Amino acid sequence: MAEKITPRHVDYSRWYTDVVLQAKLADYSPVKGAMVIRPNGYAIWEMIQQNLDRMFKESGHVNAYFPLLIPESFMKKEAEHVEGFSPECAVVTIGGGQELEEPLYIRPTSETIIWSMYKKWIMSYRDLPILINQWANVLRWELRTRLFLRTSEFLWQEGHTAHATFEEAEEETMRILDIYKTFAEEYLAIPVIPGRKSEAEKFAGALHTYSIEAMMQDRKALQAGTSHNLGQNFAKAFDVKYQDKEGQLQYVWATSWGVSTRLIGAIIMTHADDNGLVLPPKIAQRQVVIVPIWRGDDEKKQVLEYADGIRQELKQEFNVILDDRDQYKPGFKFAEWELQGIPVRLEIGPKDLSKNGAVLVRRDLMKKEFIDRKGILETVRQTLNQMQKDMLERARKFQQDNTHDVDDYDKFKEIIAGEGGFIRSHWCGDPACEAKIKEDTKATIRNIPFDREEEKGKCIVCGKESNGRVIFAKAY
Amino acid sequence: MAEKITPRHVDYSRWYTDVVLQAKLADYSPVKGAMVIRPNGYAIWEMIQQNLDRMFKESGHVNAYFPLLIPESFMKKEAEHVEGFSPECAVVTIGGGQELEEPLYIRPTSETIIWSMYKKWIMSYRDLPILINQWANVLRWELRTRLFLRTSEFLWQEGHTAHATFEEAEEETMRILDIYKTFAEEYLAIPVIPGRKSEAEKFAGALHTYSIEAMMQDRKALQAGTSHNLGQNFAKAFDVKYQDKEGQLQYVWATSWGVSTRLIGAIIMTHADDNGLVLPPKIAQRQVVIVPIWRGDDEKKQVLEYADGIRQELKQEFNVILDDRDQYKPGFKFAEWELQGIPVRLEIGPKDLSKNGAVLVRRDLMKKEFIDRKGILETVRQTLNQMQKDMLERARKFQQDNTHDVDDYDKFKEIIAGEGGFIRSHWCGDPACEAKIKEDTKATIRNIPFDREEEKGKCIVCGKESNGRVIFAKAY
Repeated sequence: MAEKITPRHVDYSRWYTDVVLQAKLADYSPVKGAMVIRPNGYAIWEMIQQNLDRMFKESGHVNAYFPLLIPESFMKKEAEHVEGFSPECAVVTIGGGQELEEPLYIRPTSETIIWSMYKKWIMSYRDLPILINQWANVLRWELRTRLFLRTSEFLWQEGHTAHATFEEAEEETMRILDIYKTFAEEYLAIPVIPGRKSEAEKFAGALHTYSIEAMMQDRKALQAGTSHNLGQNFAKAFDVKYQDKEGQLQYVWATSWGVSTRLIGAIIMTHADDNGLVLPPKIAQRQVVIVPIWRGDDEKKQVLEYADGIRQELKQEFNVILDDRDQYKPGFKFAEWELQGIPVRLEIGPKDLSKNGAVLVRRDLMKKEFIDRKGILETVRQTLNQMQKDMLERARKFQQDNTHDVDDYDKFKEIIAGEGGFIRSHWCGDPACEAKIKEDTKATIRNIPFDREEEKGKCIVCGKESNGRVIFAKAY
Repeated sequence: MAEKITPRHVDYSRWYTDVVLQAKLADYSPVKGAMVIRPNGYAIWEMIQQNLDRMFKESGHVNAYFPLLIPESFMKKEAEHVEGFSPECAVVTIGGGQELEEPLYIRPTSETIIWSMYKKWIMSYRDLPILINQWANVLRWELRTRLFLRTSEFLWQEGHTAHATFEEAEEETMRILDIYKTFAEEYLAIPVIPGRKSEAEKFAGALHTYSIEAMMQDRKALQAGTSHNLGQNFAKAFDVKYQDKEGQLQYVWATSWGVSTRLIGAIIMTHADDNGLVLPPKIAQRQVVIVPIWRGDDEKKQVLEYADGIRQELKQEFNVILDDRDQYKPGFKFAEWELQGIPVRLEIGPKDLSKNGAVLVRRDLMKKEFIDRKGILETVRQTLNQMQKDMLERARKFQQDNTHDVDDYDKFKEIIAGEGGFIRSHWCGDPACEAKIKEDTKATIRNIPFDREEEKGKCIVCGKESNGRVIFAKAY
């Protein structure tokens, strides 16, 4: 609380770091590229885990755990995969005091080690599908760290499923992308665009990659989750076949999918303001803070008794903090809880007590409103529900207001170099045009939206025919 | 299900491995020393996590996440610590394609990295206590693997707390050991002996180590949890001081404590039998399986309808499987669910339907009992409660029956070499006597029980004076 948060309009990037550090969500560690997730930040991750895990289980998935270390030879079995991931791996060469015969890679992702096990477990169509998810740490070497958004080690979930047919794998890929979209919008209040990645942007080893893309407050895109149809690539690399009902041997079809602690960065960059974090109620571990206000011991006693009554009532349904610390003034407490993003604050002083009510402040609006003591549980419940909805709608409006249909490449470059945002433009499908745009502007194709309309047009670079628009943006 | 489990009396060690592999709790991985925790095994870990995590939070602890990789120089800051752990570390020497300037150790435990952060976070007595826990993977190089009990990588929780005084740290150490004991007995149905470790057996870097010790079915001991008072050792190594109320700088006091996936091994070795796993109801993710029995389509329809009604009723409170698979016979299903340790099985055939009831089989007793359809939820609830209690009492009796007070060293050696068990003997406190016993018999001091009686006696090795008995056993 000693320092001030840099306002967004002064320096967006410093603002982000200030929020993360001052709200005690994370901290830099002495290990290059690695961060520490502090309790306030980890609490958000726990809420993400809880809700996503429930959604995975409701759709038939189970959790398991595979080894952290992957033999070098495994990494090399799928050609594109090793090319994509090897350069960013951390490699163990010494174990138990001895030089290892074969170096071991810290998993950058677990396809190879998991498919080496599926080889043991899958023999017949009766063994399929396998619907396994893993909550784990992974590591991809990074020197330019950005807390939550880009760190060497991060936490994630990675689903790895095995199926009898392409269609089943594709269905699973879509089922998961849909879970990700629902979760992002209904829990994180982050509107996202689901779609297919271009060939250049797909996962190393995938047939198709699908993603959900969100827009941050600086109008840059953030990929919030990916779901891959891996085809038979890993089954072939690890020789995983099953006997079908007719007794024929077939290669197994695969998917993989994941979201990571990066989502915490997305929550901050979508909702936080110059006073600090703003948490969507459904993802806040503590939804309500009560700040009592008093002068002198008599008032203190009365106010605390009254405030505790309210706490007891709200506790039935919510996680409530009663901040009765003596050593801090109310204004200090307000600022501290605003910084941490607690959705609803109740201020209770002698006046509120005499009027049999409380002052409610919604974190996203910061407006004081007097509410009645009677029915306070219902009032808080409604307030939190409304806040959850409003946050999503506000973010959706921001995304829409900053999405432009552009048909002229100069205009395209001007917008990307200027205010930024999502640009919907025609693209012929040629990787060369995609590469040129990236070179000229640093913008990439975020995805080819599922819901894009059929529309005849001309590629914004080469002018060749196109059947619809794709989303371009600079991205985290 | 193709193979038979080796009976315990034939080969206890093979029996254990058979249970783990055939119940699909875990599997060997292609990486030396590492295992894969399969969904059935991971479900047990999730139940352990859920319940322990709740107990930690109720006692004021919060979760956080610290980096996997620890710089070599950090490991070296605490002399005993590095001596204890360095030889069993995996070391990263290459990152992002480059030879690293300083090797990074995969955490064998996180004291050093965490105390380097506490150095940043702790300035005043107002910052204390810090009560942080971490759920994570750790790695200690092992070549002789035993599924769950001894693997290079394992999952655990590690608490790391910081306090203003020795007394507070000691109190925390005890609070946690008490949580471990309660959890082991009330959830895992494993009776444990809490006590203090001898100097030779304490944690590398601790002032005192406390443990809970359990007895397995082969009468060997298994350390099921440890809690360490680290004194000021790590605060001194990382120069972590706080300003007390009088403005004086003081070194911070520390504790650390942990339990791991080893507990799954303890559950198996305490409760499983020659038919497979037996899960204490409170730690079973699925408590009830219903196996319908029919001949012909008419019976099938009737029986399934009736069984589903029961499933619906039990579902209000329990996780129930209705095994309606066509391709397997009831006997096959019985064996499969027995192998997996589901606590209660309900068999429902046309006869049970006509008598308006079901046959209930408790996994630990394997006795069939007819129960009424009416009140079935209450019957199942009571059965599970009783089973939970009985399992603890049975294990407690086994432990007591196999614990011997011994005052003669030849007798001591005979028991350890023979049937084994816990031996309560007098010990003078000299590490030399402790070492001699270990050399002669492989038995170690498990701990000095908290509840031991004051009793004058003579050290079983050297005959010098002793004030009480300690527990000796061979251990996992």
